[in-house]
Amino acid sequence: MNVLTYNPTTGESELTDFVESTAADVALMCAHARLAASVLAGKSLVWRAGLLEAIAVNLEADAPTIIALADAETGLGETRLTGELKRTCFQFRFFANVVRDGSFLEASIDHAYDSPMGPLPDLRRQLEPLGVVGVFGASNFPLAFSVPGGDTASALAAGCSVVIKAHPAHPRTSFATFSAVDRAARDQGAPEATVSLIFGLEAGIALVENTEVAAVGFTGSYAAGRALCNRAQAREVPIPFYGELGSVNPLVVSPSAAAERAVALGEGLVASVTLGSGQFCTKPGLLFVPVGVDGDALVASAITALKKGAGATMLSASIREHFEASVDELAGQGGLELLARSTSSPSDAGSFAALFGVDVATLGSQREALMREYFGALAVIVRYESFDQLDAALDSLDPALTFTLHVSDDDEMAPALLARGVTKAGRVIVNGYPTGVGVSWSMHHGGPHPAATNSLFTSVGATAIRRWLRPVSYQGVAAKWLPDTLRDDNPLEIPQRIDGIPFGRVVS
Amino acid sequence: MNVLTYNPTTGESELTDFVESTAADVALMCAHARLAASVLAGKSLVWRAGLLEAIAVNLEADAPTIIALADAETGLGETRLTGELKRTCFQFRFFANVVRDGSFLEASIDHAYDSPMGPLPDLRRQLEPLGVVGVFGASNFPLAFSVPGGDTASALAAGCSVVIKAHPAHPRTSFATFSAVDRAARDQGAPEATVSLIFGLEAGIALVENTEVAAVGFTGSYAAGRALCNRAQAREVPIPFYGELGSVNPLVVSPSAAAERAVALGEGLVASVTLGSGQFCTKPGLLFVPVGVDGDALVASAITALKKGAGATMLSASIREHFEASVDELAGQGGLELLARSTSSPSDAGSFAALFGVDVATLGSQREALMREYFGALAVIVRYESFDQLDAALDSLDPALTFTLHVSDDDEMAPALLARGVTKAGRVIVNGYPTGVGVSWSMHHGGPHPAATNSLFTSVGATAIRRWLRPVSYQGVAAKWLPDTLRDDNPLEIPQRIDGIPFGRVVS
Repeated sequence: MNVLTYNPTTGESELTDFVESTAADVALMCAHARLAASVLAGKSLVWRAGLLEAIAVNLEADAPTIIALADAETGLGETRLTGELKRTCFQFRFFANVVRDGSFLEASIDHAYDSPMGPLPDLRRQLEPLGVVGVFGASNFPLAFSVPGGDTASALAAGCSVVIKAHPAHPRTSFATFSAVDRAARDQGAPEATVSLIFGLEAGIALVENTEVAAVGFTGSYAAGRALCNRAQAREVPIPFYGELGSVNPLVVSPSAAAERAVALGEGLVASVTLGSGQFCTKPGLLFVPVGVDGDALVASAITALKKGAGATMLSASIREHFEASVDELAGQGGLELLARSTSSPSDAGSFAALFGVDVATLGSQREALMREYFGALAVIVRYESFDQLDAALDSLDPALTFTLHVSDDDEMAPALLARGVTKAGRVIVNGYPTGVGVSWSMHHGGPHPAATNSLFTSVGATAIRRWLRPVSYQGVAAKWLPDTLRDDNPLEIPQRIDGIPFGRVVS
Repeated sequence: MNVLTYNPTTGESELTDFVESTAADVALMCAHARLAASVLAGKSLVWRAGLLEAIAVNLEADAPTIIALADAETGLGETRLTGELKRTCFQFRFFANVVRDGSFLEASIDHAYDSPMGPLPDLRRQLEPLGVVGVFGASNFPLAFSVPGGDTASALAAGCSVVIKAHPAHPRTSFATFSAVDRAARDQGAPEATVSLIFGLEAGIALVENTEVAAVGFTGSYAAGRALCNRAQAREVPIPFYGELGSVNPLVVSPSAAAERAVALGEGLVASVTLGSGQFCTKPGLLFVPVGVDGDALVASAITALKKGAGATMLSASIREHFEASVDELAGQGGLELLARSTSSPSDAGSFAALFGVDVATLGSQREALMREYFGALAVIVRYESFDQLDAALDSLDPALTFTLHVSDDDEMAPALLARGVTKAGRVIVNGYPTGVGVSWSMHHGGPHPAATNSLFTSVGATAIRRWLRPVSYQGVAAKWLPDTLRDDNPLEIPQRIDGIPFGRVVS
C-alpha cells in the first residue's frame, strides 16, 4: 500500500512512491541492522564522531530540498524549518563532541588490590552499545525530533544501528532526511543497514516487537506511546521503551512577580503558549496567577496579546479539528471561562489560540479536562488566593516535562515552590519560559509519568546517549585484549575513574 | 497470620512473633515512607554518608545475634556469615564514600552563553532521589543481598526511603538486621519511616503496586522476578523494576588453556561450582571444554575434585529436594551423562554436587533443560571440537550475569571469545572464576534478560545508586535557591562538569 502525503497549507493529499513496510520487510531490516550493530560496536570513537559530522554536512547540503519538502508536509514555514535544520545539524555535531569527550562511557579502572574484603582482581567497567535501536519520530518537529532527530543521533553516537519508523505526517521529509543520513553512513564505510527506514503503523508495531531490537525511542502522544510501551514490556524479552510523551506544563506567577511586572508577564506567557501554534510538548498549559489587581492586570495583558496574535497553519487538518473541538468543549465546561480567542476565522487554514480562566477550586472538580494535554495554542489561567491553596493545587497535578516559576528577587515563596517543582517535572525554570529546549550538557527533557514512560533519562542533550548503553565489567583481562578506552595508557585520553578517584582529581 | 521460621540444619519449623503485613499495613507504611522521602531529599550528602556509616556500626555491634539467627535460619555457618556481615558493613561504608565523592549526582553547569543556536539560559542538571524504594531480598545471602543489602544501602545513599519485604527464608534475621538499620536511622535524626519492614507474599505484591512506591529492587528467581516486574509495568503509573534474576553462566576453556593446565582448571572450576553449595547466581553452569586428551584430563580432574568435596546444608528442604529432583531428571535426559555425584548420602541433611557431560551438539536438542538455572552445585561440561562449533554454541545461549574464559597468554581464540562474551553477559572474566562479586567502583552485576529485568544497571557496586535517581534541570535559578551541589562555589567540592568540561580537565 502506498503512503499518503498531506499538505496542511493547501489541504490536499497525494500518493507517494513509498510503500508501507510489511512484517517481512521489518524482520529483514532488523536482521541486517543486528549485523550492522555488531560491526559498529567495534568502530572507534573517532570514527563514530566522524560519521555524526558527515551526517550534519549532508543534511546541510540537502537543505533546500529538505526544507521545501518539510514545509509542504507540515506548513511550518521556511524560517522555522531553517532553524530546525540548523538545530538538527548542531545536534549531530554536539553528539560528535560527546563521543570524543568519552565521559559517556563511564570508564572505571580498579587495579587488583587487597581490599578489606580480601584480594580483589583487576576490574574495569565501561558502557557498551545495546545493539539495534528503534526510533519513532514526532509530527511537530519533522527534523529535530524525527528521522534525523535526537534519538537517531544519540543512538548512532552510542554505537548502535537504528531502524526508524517514518512519521505518517511527513513521509517525503522522512525519506529525504533518511537519504542524507544513509549516504553519510555509506561514505564513511559504515556497515550496510546502519540506518533503515520503515513506513506504516503495522510496521511500527512489528519494530517494537522484533527480537533483534534492543530498545526504542519515541516522541509523541501519551496514548500511542503508552500502547507501544506496553507492547515492549509484554515481549518475551522486554526492552526499554523511552517515550517522551505529552505534558500539561504548569507555570506559576507569584504575587510579588505579578506586582512587579504584570504586563510583561501577560505578554511573555502568551508568546510562549502561542509559539509554533502551541504545538510543543513544553507549551505552558496551566498558568497560576494570583487573584487581585496585579493578577487582573496580567490577565488583561495576556488577553490583549492573544487577540493581537495571528493564526498559523497547524500541522494537519485532524490536529486542527481536534484542537477546535477541544476549545468548544472546554468552553462548555462548568467553572471555565473563555477569556479570549484569537481572531483568525475558524473557516480559514489558520489555527486560533484560546485562553481560559478558572478558579483554583475548579481544578479539582474539572481535573480530567484540565489535566488533558491540548495540542495547540490553548492555556488555562488558574487564579489562586494563597500560597497554601496554590501549593495544594500544584501537588495535585500530574508530573510534567517542565515547571516554570515567575518570582521576584527575594520572593519568600520561591524555595518552597522550587522544591515542589523538582518533584513534579524534569526541568524547573525560574523567570523564563519552558518552550525552547537547548541541546546541551545540562539539558534534561523528560519527567515522571505521564510526561515520559521512563523518568530516568532525557531525550535531549548529552546524557540522552545513556539510553542506548549497558555496563560491562572486564575482570582480569590483559591490556592487549581490553578496549582501548579501558587501558591504563588511555590512548584517547578519555576521562577514567582510576581506583575510585575521578579523572583529574588529586588525592589529598 | 504469624510467620514461620525454618531451620535447615535441624529440619524444624517454628512460629515467630512476626505477623504477615496486611494490605492496610503496607499502604500506611508506604504513605509514611513517602513523607520520609520528602524530608530525606533535603538532607545533605554529609548527613547521608553519616547515616550509612552509623548503620554499619550498628550491624557490627549486633553481629553475634545476627550471625546466630542467620545460621539457624540458613545453615550457612558462622564463617561464611561472619564474612557476609563484614561485606554488608563494608558495603554501607563504601556507599558512604560514593555519597561523599558526589560524582553520582552527575552535576553539570552550563552558564548562559550565545550558542550557535542563539542565546541559551543558565542551565544546571543533577540527579535527584526517586522517592520511596521497595526492596525484595534474596534467600541465599541473608545479609548482603537481603534487608541490609546492596539495594537498601544504595537506595538510602541516593536519598530515598526504603520499604523492605522480608524474605520468608529468614524472618528473624530480617528483623534483627532491620532493627540495627532502623536504630541507626533514629539515632541520626532520620525521619520516621526512613526504613520499614513488611512480611508476607501478599504484602510484597501490595508493595509493588502501591502508588507511593517509585521503584523496586529485587534479587531472586526468574519466575518470581518476572511476575513482580509484570505487575510493576501493569500499574497505571509503571515504575522501574530492577530484578537481578537467575543465570546459567558459561565458562569456556580454550584448547591451549586445557593443554597448559588441565588439572588445575578441573579443580578450579569444581571449587567455583560447589562454593556455597552452588547457591550463587554467579555459579558457572555450562563449562565448555575441548574434546581430546587435554579436555579429558581436565574432566578427570574435575570428577576427582567433585568426589572429594563434602556436602553442605542447603538453604531449605524445598531447595534441596528441588535440586535432587533436578539431578535425577537430568540424569534421565538423552545425551546427558552423569559424570560424577558427590558422596554425601541423599538421606542426610547435606546437599550433593553433580557434574554432567554432554556433547556440544546436544545443546540444541536439550536446550530447554540446559538453559534452566539449577540452584545448587550442578554443572554441565559441554565438549566441543572446533572454534566455530564453540562460538555457534555460545551464540545460541541465553545471556547471563557472567561469562568466563580460560585462555593461554597468546591465545588466538581470546579476542573473538571475549567479544562474544561482551554480548552475552554483564561481566566477562579471563582466567578467573565468576563466583565472588566485589563491592567496588568498577563492578557490574547484572546482564541482559533473562539475567536481569533491566540490563542498564547493576545491583552491586557504586553505580547501583543510579537506579534510584532521576535527572532534573534547573534553568535560570539564582545561586541562593540552587542545591549547593550545583552552585558555582561548590562548597562540597564534588565533581562538576562546567560548560561541557569534565571536572579537573584543562581546556587545551
